[in-house]
Amino acid sequence: MIELAATTATGPTPLAAFDHALRRIGVGDVNLVRLSSVIPPGSIVAQRDRVYTEHAWGDRLYCVWAMAEAKVPGTTASAGIAWAFRQDGSDAGLFVEDEGSSPEAVEWTLTATLEHMIAGRNIDFGPIESRIVTATCTDEPVCALVLASYQSASWRSDAAVPAAAMALTDRVMS
Amino acid sequence: MIELAATTATGPTPLAAFDHALRRIGVGDVNLVRLSSVIPPGSIVAQRDRVYTEHAWGDRLYCVWAMAEAKVPGTTASAGIAWAFRQDGSDAGLFVEDEGSSPEAVEWTLTATLEHMIAGRNIDFGPIESRIVTATCTDEPVCALVLASYQSASWRSDAAVPAAAMALTDRVMS
Amino acid sequence: MIELAATTATGPTPLAAFDHALRRIGVGDVNLVRLSSVIPPGSIVAQRDRVYTEHAWGDRLYCVWAMAEAKVPGTTASAGIAWAFRQDGSDAGLFVEDEGSSPEAVEWTLTATLEHMIAGRNIDFGPIESRIVTATCTDEPVCALVLASYQSASWRSDAAVPAAAMALTDRVMS
Repeated sequence: MIELAATTATGPTPLAAFDHALRRIGVGDVNLVRLSSVIPPGSIVAQRDRVYTEHAWGDRLYCVWAMAEAKVPGTTASAGIAWAFRQDGSDAGLFVEDEGSSPEAVEWTLTATLEHMIAGRNIDFGPIESRIVTATCTDEPVCALVLASYQSASWRSDAAVPAAAMALTDRVMS
Repeated sequence: MIELAATTATGPTPLAAFDHALRRIGVGDVNLVRLSSVIPPGSIVAQRDRVYTEHAWGDRLYCVWAMAEAKVPGTTASAGIAWAFRQDGSDAGLFVEDEGSSPEAVEWTLTATLEHMIAGRNIDFGPIESRIVTATCTDEPVCALVLASYQSASWRSDAAVPAAAMALTDRVMS
Repeated sequence: MIELAATTATGPTPLAAFDHALRRIGVGDVNLVRLSSVIPPGSIVAQRDRVYTEHAWGDRLYCVWAMAEAKVPGTTASAGIAWAFRQDGSDAGLFVEDEGSSPEAVEWTLTATLEHMIAGRNIDFGPIESRIVTATCTDEPVCALVLASYQSASWRSDAAVPAAAMALTDRVMS
């Protein structure tokens, strides 16, 4: 299951606003590793208020995200993700992300991009769904974030041949 | 074996053009994870029409790429990767990527960078090879892409059955 | 143990200067995979002259970095990382990175960001520490780099601890 959550947040710097947004959707304590956005077979995209993917503080979280920031009062930031599933029973699909200065611009780009991606694959896809979030800066920097969480990876189970790997992990991480 | 492929493509948006280019070289169905470009021991760089690295839809693909886009009619985008191998029998080497507005500029940067990288390592390297691709925007956005594919990682075998995994590693990397 | 090292370096191109900086701190021979900066439990941040994390040529190295470049003579590039640890015996913490045109600007951003991140977590944190490095371009491009190295991953041991890992994978993806 891929969990998709969206939010807006503020902070004294754009990075602080981004961190604030990550915390709001439950992923402020992970190391994000960004993917380029293909949905593996056997997936569903579950829209949630936050991400519940099991993880420990500091784990790597493989995810797709769109993030836009605005730091000049009066300006607007929109971020969006769109997706569609193959209609062959595989439960596999495609994501697209976009960031811009209005939800209309982001929606246009998401739809035009995903329609072109679908048309070029000679596979039937179901309807396009999307999630777009928008924030306007009034004073502090703002962040608009949509994030889709795939899977977490622990630092301890990354490694390999059990014995040697645990030894390596202990040596390097502790 | 690292497979290197290059292409140009168009689309209604720069991201759609990038996706189109990825599809053309056989990696439109994977999640790209970008590497910073060192070639592991025991490798060869095989120039191909497309990438044949074994993978399933949605897998992570570790790769190095250079991608340039042009969306103003009349403008040009060039992307290139250069590489060289150590001459000590290790079959290890270095990649460099660059993006620019002409193939000449990209080639100059690739060569100057890789020569400096080689000179600073006190190791003998063989000749520099490179692949540069260029696209000019006439109407729709265009994308110029060169991509070197290292290895795929399945979501299920991130961990994995030792025997099968080793077999995969051997098949993909040697 | 997370090793943190910093340096400045020059080169004929910004990428060559970055490579030069990476070599100076002992990581010119790895494929960097960038993390978004959470410190896992059981860690210490050791400030070193270079990175000693065990790795082979071409391995992936999971790390956090801040890198700034200046290529116009007379201009300055500053890069910095700040961090703080939870005070609950977990030895877990947070990193923040910033890049800018002066050490004062970078320090202000690092501190404002990390203070906001700490205040929003309802957890006691210890003092903020930071490392900032600055380079001024006189002729060739310069690079200012601060890098924190977590752990390397071999291409052969991508696969892994059989039983425990499969259990983890199943729990997260289904």
